[in-house]
Amino acid sequence: MNKKMSLLMFSGDYDKALAALILANSAKEMDIDVTIFFAFWGLLLLREPHHMTTEDKSNYEKMFAMMTPKGPDDLPLSKMNFSGIGKKMLLEMMKDDEAPELIDFLNGARKKGVNFFGCKLSMEIMGFKKEELIPEVKVVTAQDYIKDALASDIQLFI
Amino acid sequence: MNKKMSLLMFSGDYDKALAALILANSAKEMDIDVTIFFAFWGLLLLREPHHMTTEDKSNYEKMFAMMTPKGPDDLPLSKMNFSGIGKKMLLEMMKDDEAPELIDFLNGARKKGVNFFGCKLSMEIMGFKKEELIPEVKVVTAQDYIKDALASDIQLFI
Amino acid sequence: MNKKMSLLMFSGDYDKALAALILANSAKEMDIDVTIFFAFWGLLLLREPHHMTTEDKSNYEKMFAMMTPKGPDDLPLSKMNFSGIGKKMLLEMMKDDEAPELIDFLNGARKKGVNFFGCKLSMEIMGFKKEELIPEVKVVTAQDYIKDALASDIQLFI
Repeated sequence: MNKKMSLLMFSGDYDKALAALILANSAKEMDIDVTIFFAFWGLLLLREPHHMTTEDKSNYEKMFAMMTPKGPDDLPLSKMNFSGIGKKMLLEMMKDDEAPELIDFLNGARKKGVNFFGCKLSMEIMGFKKEELIPEVKVVTAQDYIKDALASDIQLFI
Repeated sequence: MNKKMSLLMFSGDYDKALAALILANSAKEMDIDVTIFFAFWGLLLLREPHHMTTEDKSNYEKMFAMMTPKGPDDLPLSKMNFSGIGKKMLLEMMKDDEAPELIDFLNGARKKGVNFFGCKLSMEIMGFKKEELIPEVKVVTAQDYIKDALASDIQLFI
Repeated sequence: MNKKMSLLMFSGDYDKALAALILANSAKEMDIDVTIFFAFWGLLLLREPHHMTTEDKSNYEKMFAMMTPKGPDDLPLSKMNFSGIGKKMLLEMMKDDEAPELIDFLNGARKKGVNFFGCKLSMEIMGFKKEELIPEVKVVTAQDYIKDALASDIQLFI
Protein backbone atom coordinates (compact mmCIF):
# COMPACT_ATOMS: atom_id res chain seq x y z
CA MET A 1 0.00 0.00 0.00
CA ASN A 2 1.22 3.50 -0.80
CA LYS A 3 2.49 5.85 1.84
CA LYS A 4 0.31 8.87 2.43
CA MET A 5 0.84 12.60 3.10
CA SER A 6 -1.81 14.95 4.50
CA LEU A 7 -1.45 18.73 4.32
CA LEU A 8 -3.77 21.18 6.06
CA MET A 9 -3.50 24.36 4.00
CA PHE A 10 -4.68 27.16 6.28
CA SER A 11 -2.57 30.00 4.95
CA GLY A 12 -3.42 32.13 1.92
CA ASP A 13 0.16 33.18 1.17
CA TYR A 14 1.84 32.71 -2.20
CA ASP A 15 5.08 31.40 -0.72
CA LYS A 16 3.43 28.96 1.70
CA ALA A 17 1.15 27.69 -1.08
CA LEU A 18 4.25 27.20 -3.19
CA ALA A 19 5.85 25.15 -0.42
CA ALA A 20 2.72 23.00 -0.03
CA LEU A 21 2.36 22.34 -3.74
CA ILE A 22 6.06 21.58 -4.26
CA LEU A 23 5.75 19.00 -1.48
CA ALA A 24 2.54 17.62 -3.02
CA ASN A 25 4.06 17.28 -6.50
CA SER A 26 7.30 15.79 -5.16
CA ALA A 27 5.40 13.25 -3.08
CA LYS A 28 3.17 12.17 -5.99
CA GLU A 29 6.31 11.58 -8.08
CA MET A 30 7.42 9.19 -5.33
CA ASP A 31 4.06 7.33 -5.48
CA ILE A 32 2.92 8.79 -2.21
CA ASP A 33 -0.81 9.55 -1.93
CA VAL A 34 -1.47 13.19 -1.12
CA THR A 35 -4.49 14.96 0.34
CA ILE A 36 -4.61 18.72 0.85
CA PHE A 37 -7.38 20.02 3.09
CA PHE A 38 -7.95 23.71 2.32
CA ALA A 39 -9.40 25.71 5.21
CA PHE A 40 -9.81 29.42 5.92
CA TRP A 41 -7.41 31.53 3.81
CA GLY A 42 -6.20 28.39 2.06
CA LEU A 43 -9.47 28.32 0.11
CA LEU A 44 -8.40 31.48 -1.74
CA LEU A 45 -5.88 29.36 -3.65
CA LEU A 46 -8.72 27.33 -5.16
CA ARG A 47 -10.83 30.22 -6.45
CA GLU A 48 -11.45 30.43 -10.16
CA PRO A 49 -11.52 34.17 -11.01
CA HIS A 50 -13.97 33.69 -13.90
CA HIS A 51 -16.40 31.64 -11.77
CA MET A 52 -17.20 34.31 -9.21
CA THR A 53 -20.84 34.77 -8.29
CA THR A 54 -22.73 37.10 -5.97
CA GLU A 55 -25.82 34.93 -5.89
CA ASP A 56 -27.06 33.84 -2.47
CA LYS A 57 -24.41 35.90 -0.72
CA SER A 58 -24.83 38.28 2.19
CA ASN A 59 -23.37 41.77 1.92
CA TYR A 60 -20.47 40.77 4.14
CA GLU A 61 -19.78 37.74 1.96
CA LYS A 62 -19.84 39.89 -1.21
CA MET A 63 -17.46 42.39 0.35
CA PHE A 64 -15.21 39.59 1.56
CA ALA A 65 -15.16 38.01 -1.91
CA MET A 66 -14.10 41.35 -3.42
CA MET A 67 -11.43 42.19 -0.85
CA THR A 68 -9.63 38.82 -0.89
CA PRO A 69 -7.23 37.37 -3.52
CA LYS A 70 -9.02 35.96 -6.58
CA GLY A 71 -6.93 32.82 -7.04
CA PRO A 72 -3.31 31.59 -7.01
CA ASP A 73 -1.72 34.47 -8.96
CA ASP A 74 -3.32 37.01 -6.66
CA LEU A 75 -1.96 35.69 -3.35
CA PRO A 76 0.49 37.91 -1.42
CA LEU A 77 3.77 36.80 0.19
CA SER A 78 3.79 35.97 3.90
CA LYS A 79 6.91 38.17 4.30
CA MET A 80 8.39 41.12 2.43
CA ASN A 81 5.35 41.51 0.21
CA PHE A 82 5.79 45.32 0.23
CA SER A 83 2.46 45.89 -1.58
CA GLY A 84 3.51 43.42 -4.24
CA ILE A 85 7.07 44.63 -4.97
CA GLY A 86 8.67 41.84 -2.93
CA LYS A 87 6.47 39.31 -4.68
CA LYS A 88 7.38 40.67 -8.12
CA MET A 89 11.04 40.33 -7.15
CA LEU A 90 10.56 36.71 -6.04
CA LEU A 91 8.73 35.93 -9.29
CA GLU A 92 11.59 37.42 -11.32
CA MET A 93 14.10 35.37 -9.36
CA MET A 94 12.03 32.25 -9.98
CA LYS A 95 11.87 33.05 -13.70
CA ASP A 96 15.66 33.48 -13.81
CA ASP A 97 15.99 29.93 -12.52
CA GLU A 98 13.24 28.64 -14.80
CA ALA A 99 11.32 27.54 -11.73
CA PRO A 100 7.62 26.94 -12.41
CA GLU A 101 5.12 29.41 -10.91
CA LEU A 102 2.48 28.60 -8.31
CA ILE A 103 -0.20 28.06 -10.95
CA ASP A 104 2.02 25.45 -12.66
CA PHE A 105 2.50 23.53 -9.42
CA LEU A 106 -1.25 23.75 -8.79
CA ASN A 107 -2.00 22.38 -12.26
CA GLY A 108 0.66 19.70 -11.77
CA ALA A 109 -1.00 18.62 -8.53
CA ARG A 110 -4.39 18.46 -10.29
CA LYS A 111 -3.00 16.31 -13.10
CA LYS A 112 -1.13 14.01 -10.74
CA GLY A 113 -4.30 13.25 -8.79
CA VAL A 114 -3.73 15.03 -5.50
CA ASN A 115 -6.94 14.92 -3.43
CA PHE A 116 -8.35 18.42 -2.96
CA PHE A 117 -10.53 18.74 0.14
CA GLY A 118 -12.36 22.01 0.89
CA CYS A 119 -13.42 22.75 4.47
CA LYS A 120 -17.23 22.88 4.61
CA LEU A 121 -17.44 25.21 7.61
CA SER A 122 -14.90 27.68 6.17
CA MET A 123 -16.80 27.76 2.86
CA GLU A 124 -20.07 28.45 4.65
CA ILE A 125 -18.59 31.23 6.76
CA MET A 126 -16.72 32.90 3.90
CA GLY A 127 -19.65 32.38 1.56
CA PHE A 128 -17.72 30.46 -1.12
CA LYS A 129 -19.86 28.15 -3.27
CA LYS A 130 -18.49 24.88 -4.63
CA GLU A 131 -18.80 26.19 -8.21
CA GLU A 132 -16.51 29.14 -7.44
CA LEU A 133 -13.62 26.76 -6.72
CA ILE A 134 -11.68 24.42 -9.01
CA PRO A 135 -13.85 21.39 -9.91
CA GLU A 136 -11.58 18.83 -8.19
CA VAL A 137 -12.55 20.14 -4.73
CA LYS A 138 -14.51 17.74 -2.57
CA VAL A 139 -16.32 19.54 0.26
CA VAL A 140 -15.69 17.77 3.58
CA THR A 141 -15.90 18.34 7.34
CA ALA A 142 -13.12 18.70 9.89
CA GLN A 143 -13.86 15.13 10.99
CA ASP A 144 -13.30 13.88 7.42
CA TYR A 145 -9.94 15.67 7.47
CA ILE A 146 -9.01 14.06 10.79
CA LYS A 147 -9.93 10.57 9.52
CA ASP A 148 -7.71 11.10 6.48
CA ALA A 149 -4.87 12.55 8.57
CA LEU A 150 -4.99 9.58 10.96
CA ALA A 151 -4.37 7.28 7.98
CA SER A 152 -1.38 9.37 6.83
CA ASP A 153 2.35 8.97 7.46
CA ILE A 154 3.09 12.69 7.29
CA GLN A 155 0.77 15.47 8.50
CA LEU A 156 1.63 19.15 8.24
CA PHE A 157 -0.27 22.36 9.05
CA ILE A 158 0.81 25.03 6.58
CA MET B 1 -6.65 2.32 23.03
CA ASN B 2 -7.79 5.68 21.72
CA LYS B 3 -6.03 7.45 18.89
CA LYS B 4 -4.29 10.64 19.92
CA MET B 5 -3.79 14.13 18.43
CA SER B 6 -1.14 16.62 19.59
CA LEU B 7 -1.30 20.30 18.65
CA LEU B 8 1.49 22.79 19.34
CA MET B 9 -0.27 26.15 19.51
CA PHE B 10 2.43 28.75 18.90
CA SER B 11 0.36 31.43 17.21
CA GLY B 12 -1.75 34.04 18.99
CA ASP B 13 -4.12 34.68 16.08
CA TYR B 14 -7.89 34.44 16.37
CA ASP B 15 -8.29 32.50 13.12
CA LYS B 16 -5.50 30.01 13.83
CA ALA B 17 -6.82 29.46 17.36
CA LEU B 18 -10.24 28.83 15.82
CA ALA B 19 -8.72 26.22 13.50
CA ALA B 20 -6.92 24.50 16.38
CA LEU B 21 -9.99 24.40 18.62
CA ILE B 22 -12.32 23.22 15.84
CA LEU B 23 -9.89 20.35 15.25
CA ALA B 24 -9.68 19.65 18.99
CA ASN B 25 -13.47 19.59 19.44
CA SER B 26 -14.00 17.48 16.31
CA ALA B 27 -11.37 14.97 17.40
CA LYS B 28 -12.84 14.61 20.91
CA GLU B 29 -16.25 13.89 19.35
CA MET B 30 -14.54 11.01 17.51
CA ASP B 31 -13.09 9.68 20.82
CA ILE B 32 -9.61 10.82 19.94
CA ASP B 33 -7.47 12.06 22.85
CA VAL B 34 -6.26 15.61 22.34
CA THR B 35 -3.41 17.56 23.87
CA ILE B 36 -2.73 21.19 23.04
CA PHE B 37 0.66 22.56 24.08
CA PHE B 38 0.46 26.36 24.25
CA ALA B 39 3.78 28.12 23.72
CA PHE B 40 4.80 31.73 23.03
CA TRP B 41 1.86 33.75 21.60
CA GLY B 42 -0.41 30.73 21.98
CA LEU B 43 -0.48 31.38 25.74
CA LEU B 44 -2.46 34.59 25.13
CA LEU B 45 -5.46 32.41 24.29
CA LEU B 46 -5.46 31.03 27.83
CA ARG B 47 -5.39 34.32 29.72
CA GLU B 48 -8.28 35.11 32.01
CA PRO B 49 -8.81 38.89 31.78
CA HIS B 50 -10.11 39.15 35.37
CA HIS B 51 -7.15 37.20 36.79
CA MET B 52 -4.40 39.58 35.74
CA THR B 53 -1.78 40.41 38.32
CA THR B 54 1.29 42.67 38.38
CA GLU B 55 2.79 40.95 41.41
CA ASP B 56 6.32 39.60 41.02
CA LYS B 57 6.60 41.01 37.51
CA SER B 58 9.45 43.00 36.02
CA ASN B 59 8.66 46.27 34.25
CA TYR B 60 9.07 44.56 30.89
CA GLU B 61 6.71 41.79 31.92
CA LYS B 62 4.10 44.34 33.11
CA MET B 63 4.39 46.26 29.83
CA PHE B 64 4.17 43.04 27.84
CA ALA B 65 1.07 41.94 29.77
CA MET B 66 -0.59 45.29 28.98
CA MET B 67 0.34 45.38 25.29
CA THR B 68 -0.77 41.85 24.39
CA PRO B 69 -4.30 40.44 23.90
CA LYS B 70 -6.13 39.72 27.18
CA GLY B 71 -7.75 36.40 26.18
CA PRO B 72 -9.55 34.69 23.29
CA ASP B 73 -11.91 37.56 22.34
CA ASP B 74 -9.02 39.96 22.12
CA LEU B 75 -6.86 38.04 19.60
CA PRO B 76 -6.30 39.62 16.15
CA LEU B 77 -6.60 37.86 12.78
CA SER B 78 -3.42 36.54 11.13
CA LYS B 79 -4.54 38.23 7.86
CA MET B 80 -6.74 41.17 6.96
CA ASN B 81 -7.14 42.26 10.56
CA PHE B 82 -7.18 45.94 9.45
CA SER B 83 -7.04 47.20 13.06
CA GLY B 84 -9.97 44.98 13.91
CA ILE B 85 -12.35 45.78 11.00
CA GLY B 86 -11.51 42.56 9.17
CA LYS B 87 -12.04 40.62 12.36
CA LYS B 88 -15.41 42.28 12.99
CA MET B 89 -16.41 41.30 9.45
CA LEU B 90 -15.38 37.66 10.00
CA LEU B 91 -17.31 37.58 13.29
CA GLU B 92 -20.43 38.95 11.54
CA MET B 93 -20.09 36.30 8.83
CA MET B 94 -19.74 33.61 11.49
CA LYS B 95 -22.84 34.94 13.27
CA ASP B 96 -24.82 34.85 10.01
CA ASP B 97 -24.02 31.14 9.77
CA GLU B 98 -24.70 30.58 13.46
CA ALA B 99 -21.14 29.32 13.83
CA PRO B 100 -19.92 29.36 17.44
CA GLU B 101 -17.24 31.91 18.38
CA LEU B 102 -13.71 31.14 19.54
CA ILE B 103 -14.69 31.34 23.21
CA ASP B 104 -17.40 28.70 22.62
CA PHE B 105 -14.92 26.32 21.01
CA LEU B 106 -12.50 26.96 23.89
CA ASN B 107 -15.19 26.19 26.46
CA GLY B 108 -16.22 23.12 24.43
CA ALA B 109 -12.63 21.86 24.50
CA ARG B 110 -12.49 22.43 28.28
CA LYS B 111 -15.73 20.51 28.85
CA LYS B 112 -14.72 17.67 26.53
CA GLY B 113 -11.50 17.08 28.45
CA VAL B 114 -8.84 18.31 26.04
CA ASN B 115 -5.45 18.37 27.82
CA PHE B 116 -4.18 21.93 28.13
CA PHE B 117 -0.39 22.14 28.44
CA GLY B 118 1.32 25.49 29.02
CA CYS B 119 5.00 25.87 28.06
CA LYS B 120 7.02 26.51 31.25
CA LEU B 121 9.83 28.43 29.53
CA SER B 122 7.43 30.71 27.60
CA MET B 123 5.53 31.47 30.80
CA GLU B 124 8.75 32.37 32.61
CA ILE B 125 9.96 34.61 29.80
CA MET B 126 6.63 36.37 29.27
CA GLY B 127 6.05 36.57 33.01
CA PHE B 128 2.66 34.80 33.01
CA LYS B 129 1.76 33.13 36.32
CA LYS B 130 -0.26 29.91 36.42
CA GLU B 131 -3.14 31.71 38.16
CA GLU B 132 -3.47 34.19 35.27
CA LEU B 133 -4.41 31.35 32.88
CA ILE B 134 -7.48 29.09 32.77
CA PRO B 135 -7.32 26.54 35.63
CA GLU B 136 -7.07 23.48 33.34
CA VAL B 137 -3.54 24.44 32.27
CA LYS B 138 -0.79 22.06 33.35
CA VAL B 139 2.64 23.70 33.19
CA VAL B 140 5.12 21.43 31.39
CA THR B 141 8.51 21.52 29.64
CA ALA B 142 9.34 21.14 25.96
CA GLN B 143 10.48 17.59 26.73
CA ASP B 144 7.06 16.77 28.21
CA TYR B 145 5.52 18.05 25.00
CA ILE B 146 7.85 15.88 22.89
CA LYS B 147 7.03 12.77 24.93
CA ASP B 148 3.33 13.39 24.40
CA ALA B 149 3.78 14.14 20.69
CA LEU B 150 5.76 10.92 20.20
CA ALA B 151 2.77 8.98 21.54
CA SER B 152 0.38 10.75 19.15
CA ASP B 153 -0.94 9.77 15.73
CA ILE B 154 -1.28 13.34 14.47
CA GLN B 155 1.06 16.23 15.35
CA LEU B 156 0.58 19.76 14.05
CA PHE B 157 2.38 23.06 14.69
CA ILE B 158 -0.16 25.87 14.47
CA MET C 1 16.66 2.39 17.18
CA ASN C 2 16.27 6.03 18.15
CA LYS C 3 13.04 7.91 17.67
CA LYS C 4 13.22 10.65 15.08
CA MET C 5 11.86 14.21 14.71
CA SER C 6 11.66 16.12 11.42
CA LEU C 7 11.11 19.89 11.32
CA LEU C 8 10.44 21.84 8.14
CA MET C 9 11.63 25.36 8.92
CA PHE C 10 9.88 27.62 6.42
CA SER C 11 9.58 30.76 8.51
CA GLY C 12 12.30 33.37 8.97
CA ASP C 13 10.99 34.73 12.27
CA TYR C 14 13.11 34.97 15.41
CA ASP C 15 10.40 33.58 17.68
CA LYS C 16 9.50 30.64 15.43
CA ALA C 17 13.20 29.81 14.95
CA LEU C 18 13.53 29.88 18.74
CA ALA C 19 10.64 27.41 19.05
CA ALA C 20 12.16 25.09 16.44
CA LEU C 21 15.61 25.11 18.00
CA ILE C 22 14.32 24.65 21.55
CA LEU C 23 12.45 21.58 20.31
CA ALA C 24 15.55 20.36 18.46
CA ASN C 25 17.83 20.75 21.48
CA SER C 26 15.27 19.20 23.86
CA ALA C 27 14.79 16.22 21.55
CA LYS C 28 18.53 15.59 21.18
CA GLU C 29 18.85 15.57 25.00
CA MET C 30 16.26 12.76 24.95
CA ASP C 31 18.33 10.81 22.37
CA ILE C 32 15.89 11.57 19.59
CA ASP C 33 17.41 12.08 16.12
CA VAL C 34 16.55 15.47 14.67
CA THR C 35 16.55 16.78 11.11
CA ILE C 36 15.66 20.37 10.26
CA PHE C 37 14.95 21.09 6.59
CA PHE C 38 15.38 24.83 5.97
CA ALA C 39 13.36 26.17 3.05
CA PHE C 40 12.42 29.66 1.86
CA TRP C 41 12.75 32.23 4.67
CA GLY C 42 14.06 29.53 6.97
CA LEU C 43 17.38 29.68 5.11
CA LEU C 44 17.99 33.18 6.51
CA LEU C 45 18.65 31.58 9.88
CA LEU C 46 21.65 29.74 8.44
CA ARG C 47 23.40 32.70 6.85
CA GLU C 48 26.87 33.57 8.07
CA PRO C 49 27.09 37.38 7.94
CA HIS C 50 30.85 37.35 7.27
CA HIS C 51 30.53 34.82 4.42
CA MET C 52 28.36 36.92 2.11
CA THR C 53 29.34 37.02 -1.53
CA THR C 54 27.96 38.79 -4.60
CA GLU C 55 29.76 36.47 -7.02
CA ASP C 56 27.59 34.72 -9.59
CA LYS C 57 24.49 36.56 -8.42
CA SER C 58 21.87 38.30 -10.51
CA ASN C 59 20.89 41.86 -9.60
CA TYR C 60 17.70 40.59 -8.01
CA GLU C 61 19.63 38.06 -5.97
CA LYS C 62 22.07 40.75 -4.79
CA MET C 63 19.21 43.04 -3.82
CA PHE C 64 17.43 40.18 -2.07
CA ALA C 65 20.60 39.28 -0.14
CA MET C 66 20.89 42.89 1.03
CA MET C 67 17.24 43.35 2.01
CA THR C 68 16.87 40.17 4.05
CA PRO C 69 18.11 39.35 7.59
CA LYS C 70 21.81 38.44 7.69
CA GLY C 71 21.60 35.56 10.16
CA PRO C 72 19.94 34.53 13.44
CA ASP C 73 20.42 37.78 15.37
CA ASP C 74 18.90 39.77 12.54
CA LEU C 75 15.56 37.93 12.28
CA PRO C 76 12.38 39.86 13.18
CA LEU C 77 9.52 38.64 15.40
CA SER C 78 6.44 37.13 13.72
CA LYS C 79 4.25 39.36 15.95
CA MET C 80 4.71 42.67 17.73
CA ASN C 81 8.08 43.33 16.12
CA PHE C 82 7.31 47.09 16.00
CA SER C 83 10.42 47.81 13.91
CA GLY C 84 12.54 45.93 16.42
CA ILE C 85 11.22 47.42 19.69
CA GLY C 86 9.07 44.39 20.46
CA LYS C 87 12.00 42.13 19.74
CA LYS C 88 14.29 44.15 22.01
CA MET C 89 11.69 43.80 24.75
CA LEU C 90 11.49 40.03 24.29
CA LEU C 91 15.29 39.77 24.38
CA GLU C 92 15.40 41.77 27.64
CA MET C 93 12.75 39.51 29.13
CA MET C 94 14.75 36.46 28.07
CA LYS C 95 17.89 37.93 29.61
CA ASP C 96 16.04 38.57 32.90
CA ASP C 97 15.25 34.85 33.03
CA GLU C 98 18.76 33.89 31.94
CA ALA C 99 17.24 32.13 28.94
CA PRO C 100 19.78 31.51 26.14
CA GLU C 101 19.38 33.52 22.91
CA LEU C 102 18.59 32.11 19.47
CA ILE C 103 22.26 31.94 18.51
CA ASP C 104 22.98 29.82 21.61
CA PHE C 105 20.24 27.36 20.72
CA LEU C 106 21.55 27.27 17.14
CA ASN C 107 25.07 26.54 18.35
CA GLY C 108 23.70 23.94 20.76
CA ALA C 109 21.89 22.20 17.91
CA ARG C 110 25.12 22.21 15.85
CA LYS C 111 27.13 20.71 18.72
CA LYS C 112 24.49 18.10 19.51
CA GLY C 113 24.52 16.82 15.92
CA VAL C 114 21.16 17.97 14.57
CA ASN C 115 21.02 17.32 10.81
CA PHE C 116 20.84 20.60 8.90
CA PHE C 117 19.22 20.22 5.47
CA GLY C 118 19.05 23.20 3.08
CA CYS C 119 16.39 23.21 0.34
CA LYS C 120 18.16 23.12 -3.04
CA LEU C 121 15.37 24.84 -4.98
CA SER C 122 15.00 27.66 -2.42
CA MET C 123 18.75 28.25 -2.48
CA GLU C 124 18.76 28.45 -6.27
CA ILE C 125 15.82 30.86 -6.37
CA MET C 126 17.12 33.11 -3.61
CA GLY C 127 20.65 32.89 -4.94
CA PHE C 128 22.25 31.62 -1.71
CA LYS C 129 25.48 29.66 -2.21
CA LYS C 130 26.41 26.77 0.06
CA GLU C 131 29.46 28.70 1.36
CA GLU C 132 27.24 31.56 2.56
CA LEU C 133 25.52 29.24 5.04
CA ILE C 134 26.82 27.45 8.15
CA PRO C 135 29.09 24.56 7.10
CA GLU C 136 26.86 21.82 8.58
CA VAL C 137 24.21 22.41 5.89
CA LYS C 138 23.66 19.55 3.45
CA VAL C 139 21.89 20.71 0.30
CA VAL C 140 18.99 18.38 -0.53
CA THR C 141 15.78 18.24 -2.59
CA ALA C 142 12.16 18.24 -1.46
CA GLN C 143 12.10 14.49 -2.14
CA ASP C 144 15.03 13.96 0.22
CA TYR C 145 13.09 15.86 2.86
CA ILE C 146 10.00 13.70 2.28
CA LYS C 147 12.03 10.48 2.57
CA ASP C 148 13.44 11.68 5.88
CA ALA C 149 10.04 12.86 7.13
CA LEU C 150 8.47 9.48 6.28
CA ALA C 151 11.03 7.82 8.57
CA SER C 152 10.24 10.22 11.43
CA ASP C 153 7.89 9.90 14.40
CA ILE C 154 7.14 13.64 14.62
CA GLN C 155 6.88 16.02 11.66
CA LEU C 156 6.17 19.72 12.04
CA PHE C 157 5.98 22.61 9.57
CA ILE C 158 7.19 25.75 11.33
